Amino acid sequence: MKKHNFYAGPAILPQSVMEQASQATKELDGCGLSILEISHRSKEFAAVMEEIISSTRELLDINDDYEVLFLTGGASSQFYMTAMNLLPSNGKACYVDTGAWSTKALKEAKLFGDVQVLASSKDKNYTYIPKDYSIPADATYLHLTSNNTIFGTAYHAWPETNVPFVCDMSSDIFSRPIEMEKFGVIYAGAQKNLGPAGVTLAIVRKDMLNKVDRMIPTMLDYNTHIKKQSTFNTPPAFPIYVSMLTMRWLKENGGVAAMQMKNEEKAAILYKEIDDNPLFEGSAAKEDRSLMNVTFLLKDSDLESAFLDACTEANCIGVKGHRSVGGFRASIYNAMPKESVQVLVDVMKEFGKNFG
Amino acid sequence: MKKHNFYAGPAILPQSVMEQASQATKELDGCGLSILEISHRSKEFAAVMEEIISSTRELLDINDDYEVLFLTGGASSQFYMTAMNLLPSNGKACYVDTGAWSTKALKEAKLFGDVQVLASSKDKNYTYIPKDYSIPADATYLHLTSNNTIFGTAYHAWPETNVPFVCDMSSDIFSRPIEMEKFGVIYAGAQKNLGPAGVTLAIVRKDMLNKVDRMIPTMLDYNTHIKKQSTFNTPPAFPIYVSMLTMRWLKENGGVAAMQMKNEEKAAILYKEIDDNPLFEGSAAKEDRSLMNVTFLLKDSDLESAFLDACTEANCIGVKGHRSVGGFRASIYNAMPKESVQVLVDVMKEFGKNFG
Repeated sequence: MKKHNFYAGPAILPQSVMEQASQATKELDGCGLSILEISHRSKEFAAVMEEIISSTRELLDINDDYEVLFLTGGASSQFYMTAMNLLPSNGKACYVDTGAWSTKALKEAKLFGDVQVLASSKDKNYTYIPKDYSIPADATYLHLTSNNTIFGTAYHAWPETNVPFVCDMSSDIFSRPIEMEKFGVIYAGAQKNLGPAGVTLAIVRKDMLNKVDRMIPTMLDYNTHIKKQSTFNTPPAFPIYVSMLTMRWLKENGGVAAMQMKNEEKAAILYKEIDDNPLFEGSAAKEDRSLMNVTFLLKDSDLESAFLDACTEANCIGVKGHRSVGGFRASIYNAMPKESVQVLVDVMKEFGKNFG
Repeated sequence: MKKHNFYAGPAILPQSVMEQASQATKELDGCGLSILEISHRSKEFAAVMEEIISSTRELLDINDDYEVLFLTGGASSQFYMTAMNLLPSNGKACYVDTGAWSTKALKEAKLFGDVQVLASSKDKNYTYIPKDYSIPADATYLHLTSNNTIFGTAYHAWPETNVPFVCDMSSDIFSRPIEMEKFGVIYAGAQKNLGPAGVTLAIVRKDMLNKVDRMIPTMLDYNTHIKKQSTFNTPPAFPIYVSMLTMRWLKENGGVAAMQMKNEEKAAILYKEIDDNPLFEGSAAKEDRSLMNVTFLLKDSDLESAFLDACTEANCIGVKGHRSVGGFRASIYNAMPKESVQVLVDVMKEFGKNFG
């Protein structure tokens, strides 16, 4: 019996993608080898790399001012790589602190230069996105976390500034169209909307680079991977392959504009129940609610384990909230079917009847 | 038609491992989720991490003086991480240069401190392992590349010294028993004897650490991953899972001592043909020949494309040598069946008849 997978990440992928990945693990497109054992220098894998880069450009409408990289590791590695590559020792990086991942990102940046935290929502346990702050015009970049997986908040409007954004989009990339021209660098670990853990997409505007004079190990220098189109060393071939399959699925399903409509619809169903059901309440400020990670609480926290049991009973898993928020979190990424969201809503309705 | 996969890496894995990986990509052990979409904090994945760490300890006979880590990336990331974590700014790291990977490793180490290259076989295009050199007793470590994938050489005896080795075992780990007490750190990218690309095994003796005072980004500090047992951040779950399956296969097949016997037998068959067949010659010094990567040449290089055609005809792929050596390379890792080696030998015999 397949489960309804509400985990925050690694997370649900399209069913058809997992089936194709399973087949390729036996044999890739009739080539006589598994995707697991094929050389990254083979013509078959070269085609995978070429397709994933061109699909990324197509889906996010990325022009030639930007390089598209698929790097090893996750967003945690980009926390220091962005600062290491972008922030001159006499430069100034600005950060908005919207939760655990922002906090980790700015901690790493401090190793490399002057970091200014322009605003933080820590005062209210990161339940909102700060909006009123001024951005120094001479900042090298402004770092944002577009969607806050743990706290269930997201940017629905970008700050007004000419300072380029460096943005961690790990948990909402490909969930909506983005105005690329605002971004100097976008990075995103694969394991939410893209593929299995182990690869990170980095989109780097070329004019952001070559402004630092520190020594950078070869593997940590964006230029290394730009020169070799992400195959300087053996790339994480399987996570890249599965991410490529997800991009095919995205294109077949109307691209990121269609995803946004579907995501808004799914989120609306779930938030409506949270707002209508007298037992529950949302934990994030309404205007900043994430379309990817829906966080909510039981007003009577004594009922929590009963609700989790009811979820498990209905094959809804991964619904327990992060320990720093408590309550519940339903992650409803691109691949989550509306039907699964409806199953969870039905559990909440039934729970309301039984315990209301 | 399955191919005989002689690629140097990513490389052949046991057929049963690829089949189990394919099944788990659909659904992991009846848990209702694919291995691709399961949380790294789930009890199912926690069991995978626990098993792979204990299997590594069992297979290589590793005691509690050492930590076993599964890190993101490949050996290329360890080139700088080892020096960054181990080499004090007033320390001295010694390197033996046995080919392209050694050269890259020592280049990165130079960013962090004093690097002495004790010996190099560059004078003969890395066709042998240097043996006569003295090792400064006060060196922090001696870096070795145990098996040289490109040049087809390997250490069959370790240098005599009390200086701890830091060793890149990417292409021969688990192929033979090792005397752990000689090693301070062992690292190995997965994509030869372990699993798909995207994860690196690092075995770190605890007394090697905490001797440097430089600032290290959190993700690059071995201590971070030791404290969190390789799950500080989302680990590359699928490459780790497949590597765990390979370790099960290793244990079912007698462990590393049995592998060594099988590897010696396979290599002997192939080297015998290289030595007996008047058309061919080995490219590495006989006493340093690798059991993993068998490099050989046609005495008449004009016949090369005809030989590659004959290999392709017999479904033997990945036999073309690295551009820096030329000729041919048959990589015959643990998972390579003796039968496939025999197919290649038969091609060579037939080729000898036709062109001899």
